[in-house]
Amino acid sequence: MDSGQEDASRSRDDAPSSGHQRAESRRQPSTPEFLREVSLTRIEGIRVGHVQKVSLVPGKVHEMRTLSLKPLLFEIPGFLSEDECRVVMQLAQLKGLMESQLMVQDGQEELAKELNLSPEEIFNLLDINQDGQLQLHEILTHSRVRDGIWLTPENLREIYAGLQADKDGDGLLSLEEFRLLSNDAFQRFLLQRGVKRSQLVRNSRHTWLYQGKGAHQVLQDIKARVTRLTRLPPSLVDLSEPLQVVRYEEGGHYHAHHDSGPVYPETACTHTRLAANTSTPFETSCRYITVLFYLNSVDGGGETAFPVADNRTYDEVSLIQDEVDLLDTRRNCGKSNLRVKPTKGNAVFWYNYLSDGRGWVGEQDEYALHGGCVVTHGTKWVANKWINIDPDYQRQARYQQLVSQQPEDEDDDDDLTLNTDVESPSIHQDL
Amino acid sequence: MDSGQEDASRSRDDAPSSGHQRAESRRQPSTPEFLREVSLTRIEGIRVGHVQKVSLVPGKVHEMRTLSLKPLLFEIPGFLSEDECRVVMQLAQLKGLMESQLMVQDGQEELAKELNLSPEEIFNLLDINQDGQLQLHEILTHSRVRDGIWLTPENLREIYAGLQADKDGDGLLSLEEFRLLSNDAFQRFLLQRGVKRSQLVRNSRHTWLYQGKGAHQVLQDIKARVTRLTRLPPSLVDLSEPLQVVRYEEGGHYHAHHDSGPVYPETACTHTRLAANTSTPFETSCRYITVLFYLNSVDGGGETAFPVADNRTYDEVSLIQDEVDLLDTRRNCGKSNLRVKPTKGNAVFWYNYLSDGRGWVGEQDEYALHGGCVVTHGTKWVANKWINIDPDYQRQARYQQLVSQQPEDEDDDDDLTLNTDVESPSIHQDL
Repeated sequence: MDSGQEDASRSRDDAPSSGHQRAESRRQPSTPEFLREVSLTRIEGIRVGHVQKVSLVPGKVHEMRTLSLKPLLFEIPGFLSEDECRVVMQLAQLKGLMESQLMVQDGQEELAKELNLSPEEIFNLLDINQDGQLQLHEILTHSRVRDGIWLTPENLREIYAGLQADKDGDGLLSLEEFRLLSNDAFQRFLLQRGVKRSQLVRNSRHTWLYQGKGAHQVLQDIKARVTRLTRLPPSLVDLSEPLQVVRYEEGGHYHAHHDSGPVYPETACTHTRLAANTSTPFETSCRYITVLFYLNSVDGGGETAFPVADNRTYDEVSLIQDEVDLLDTRRNCGKSNLRVKPTKGNAVFWYNYLSDGRGWVGEQDEYALHGGCVVTHGTKWVANKWINIDPDYQRQARYQQLVSQQPEDEDDDDDLTLNTDVESPSIHQDL
Repeated sequence: MDSGQEDASRSRDDAPSSGHQRAESRRQPSTPEFLREVSLTRIEGIRVGHVQKVSLVPGKVHEMRTLSLKPLLFEIPGFLSEDECRVVMQLAQLKGLMESQLMVQDGQEELAKELNLSPEEIFNLLDINQDGQLQLHEILTHSRVRDGIWLTPENLREIYAGLQADKDGDGLLSLEEFRLLSNDAFQRFLLQRGVKRSQLVRNSRHTWLYQGKGAHQVLQDIKARVTRLTRLPPSLVDLSEPLQVVRYEEGGHYHAHHDSGPVYPETACTHTRLAANTSTPFETSCRYITVLFYLNSVDGGGETAFPVADNRTYDEVSLIQDEVDLLDTRRNCGKSNLRVKPTKGNAVFWYNYLSDGRGWVGEQDEYALHGGCVVTHGTKWVANKWINIDPDYQRQARYQQLVSQQPEDEDDDDDLTLNTDVESPSIHQDL
């Protein structure tokens, strides 16, 4: 349920610069307050189990049920018709699907080199509880996404054995033991031994379907229906990523992840990059909403799991324990707080960001963590519609001006408005 | 933090007619949809720990911190000045405080008689897990509030011994054992033995201070500040209960309770009763918001506890276990999810009802369960401002028309509006 870009953003989430100070630093607004003419609708969840009727297509009323409040998550049975599901799957087949994840991702290795950390420094970052030893879960918490290979505690024990890393055999790595390992020792060991698809973070194939003018009517209809559902300005939906169609074969999965990364002042959104200060060192997907469509009913497995939905607290560290890893959707979907069964035509949607309290996008909602449980029987087809919004309002507005080719008025930043129709730039309508 | 009326509403909550079907029955609106001209503001919580600045008094900015989302709960340090706290306590002393709870409440006994249940029927209602035995917690769950005396498992064991109720001494009551007890056997036993203040549901004294025209300026100021804080129509705040001032001596407490009862079609709100159909059999306090002011800093104890704040689920039955009773604020405050320390001048406020999703009051928020922990050192002074709103919009509107002495237009119910200023009925302003 994601493109490849997102993995990069997650690994930065694991980086030392983020952490407890993040929430604090966001509390002080770095830019002066200003009046905006846009206020994004956020649908009320009321309480888990609440059902509201929504009008999405003429002559039909859909029911929308609240599945959780953290994240704000809804299910709409029968959002797509059987025919629509069939057409979307056929269009994706025609276009061809590609592997969602290549065997090895690089780029992250380079980042580590750039930061130029000593083995001691890396050891200290990994050692969460600062006991001078690396427990298995401390390795997993930091190293999994960097390698693009999903490590389990058993894998790690095999690696330790293969590399003779754990000299004293106590299942822990001391600084002395750690120092003897090269930076990419684990990765090289795994690649030498061969990596199976089931050992990757995601095990699926996907493609992208354009939904603008000239696209198949079904795809345009779906886009319009998503706009009605989310009650967001049409321009925001129009300028978002194409529809992503994903196919999981039997045995396919997608371990738990966030569709969007956290956004700091120094981070740019992928979709507004051309309007951003080019010197921003980091980039992440900014997907305010995920709409997930089930294109078929799966014979066995393949649920969408939300491990920490409506948890009282979010504690990233306790997600991965030495024995139970809640992010592992091949093993521990049963321990997730919430699981949605894939049923043909149904849609779920959720907000990956909180509100900022002033009608715009706020902080990342960490509770939006989700994954695809392993498909035990048959094939699973889903589609994703992400609605991209930059948490930096000015950058979103500037981006929309750029793509609609309207002149930007440099003198009057506060009057920026979002166009409701980017396909007809001549029609300018304030929201 | 409540008047005596509320106990009656809670005991009905325990009655057989309520239960799992409640939420279902509320989902089908009993009255046709209509357009309203009022939409109640509900302040956004965003996330636990979120801080928003609010302007309540000229030349000062208060910070309002989100303490929980279930219930929607905020804390505002320095809401009242030291002088204001002093004046409120002095005014309450001048007026005189009365016992918050009399030793024995009747009226409930009569209700049981009216329902005319057989011992077998009562046994079956009490036997939650339907195992043909009454565990201690099954007695506590149902019988505590009916008697107005707070029962602990130890109390019950003493009662069993004194009444020779548990013939076989297994700590459980069988139907045969239960049948030998009279309806009010427990209560009569406790009264004969003598009831201490610490054994009551609440152990405090309180009084009411009128806040309308002619009242002390401090009281009028507080009302105006509450209106600004809650962003609700002034008429709703003006027509609410007076300010309640409560004093807890050392050893004082208030076990966990709801300030408002659930509202069914057949239930009327106390404050709108004069505008309601007089045949409604039940009555409850309808307190949309509770604002709780701490008038002094307590030397020890006296926290406000929210046992299930932000819990993933609400399970009334599991609140009271054989060994741990989360409602007992003399014993188990330490197990509450959230505790607010009483600090002079601070205010907390929360919503006792959810939204109905259309700008009005919805279902009761069960997570708003709260109590006052035992005061271990010194005295505790608090004040409560409740904002009364009838979940039945028509009834609230009719009530406001009645008290503002405006003629009701029988032909056009949909045009009912809430007056913003009831003290000057000539000024009619639509919201």
